[in-house]
Amino acid sequence: MRILGIDPGYAIMGYGILDKNGSSLKLVDVGAVTTDKDMDMSDRLKVLYASLMEIIAEYQPEEVAIEELYFNTNAKTVIFVGEARGVAILACANSGLPIYEYTPLQIKTSVTGNGRAEKKQVQSMVKLLLGMEEIIKPDDAADAVAAAICHAKSGTAMKRLKELKARQRR
Amino acid sequence: MRILGIDPGYAIMGYGILDKNGSSLKLVDVGAVTTDKDMDMSDRLKVLYASLMEIIAEYQPEEVAIEELYFNTNAKTVIFVGEARGVAILACANSGLPIYEYTPLQIKTSVTGNGRAEKKQVQSMVKLLLGMEEIIKPDDAADAVAAAICHAKSGTAMKRLKELKARQRR
Repeated sequence: MRILGIDPGYAIMGYGILDKNGSSLKLVDVGAVTTDKDMDMSDRLKVLYASLMEIIAEYQPEEVAIEELYFNTNAKTVIFVGEARGVAILACANSGLPIYEYTPLQIKTSVTGNGRAEKKQVQSMVKLLLGMEEIIKPDDAADAVAAAICHAKSGTAMKRLKELKARQRR
Repeated sequence: MRILGIDPGYAIMGYGILDKNGSSLKLVDVGAVTTDKDMDMSDRLKVLYASLMEIIAEYQPEEVAIEELYFNTNAKTVIFVGEARGVAILACANSGLPIYEYTPLQIKTSVTGNGRAEKKQVQSMVKLLLGMEEIIKPDDAADAVAAAICHAKSGTAMKRLKELKARQRR
């Protein structure tokens, strides 16, 4: 199964494409879409949406893992990050992809076993789990891959929960 | 000139289509796109985007006025409103429309002459300015029309400012 991990942001949006075969994980691609601070927000959102649509078209992922936001993370920019996150979710939804959301706590716990792990520990574990020689840069790209790993490890339980919720709504 | 006013929201997104001829204003259409609380956020964003694209295709507005968000308005839902707002801006940007953002203070001042005006005062002035018999319902639709009126009244100054900023960036 191919997973697209996304770390939402308006200046930098990290992404990672991960293949899961049984318990083996393979990183297919990783990177970040960046937008210039001198651009209008509407142009930045356009670039983010178009870039994600291209990445989805190129790699054809089957499922998406995206980090949840907390309103107290950075109050000043939270609206802009929310706008970028909405556009990222829309690109996936308009491509027909199921979207799974994970909190930073869930991602850290899944990747390192410790919900309070430092950024460096998460990056080291991502490197170790994927058998890489260097840690992934920038941080946003590493975080996107961490979200994808979290989904690869806990996706089955999340899917059951999603199906259960959908059934209850009917 | 035809203006699309938007009051961003994820459960209810108000919109208004306003024609400006000289100093005369005419309301062409007004309404609200609603999404069900039992839907996944990704499906809600999809509906909001598709509905706005339909409204734009049907009415062919030339410019867009959208209300700015404040992170302290409602901290719990601000991320969801941000996501919906991002998708609304994207629909306009992907349709090639110039987008103008106004704060609630600017809108209230423009419509009533008082930046601290109550919701009811704004609604009464909207009714009066457009020569309507009843106030517009729901509130979100009335707020969208108020944003469009604000743009109709101050659009020229805003356009000069936007052009100036764009020139400075080159």
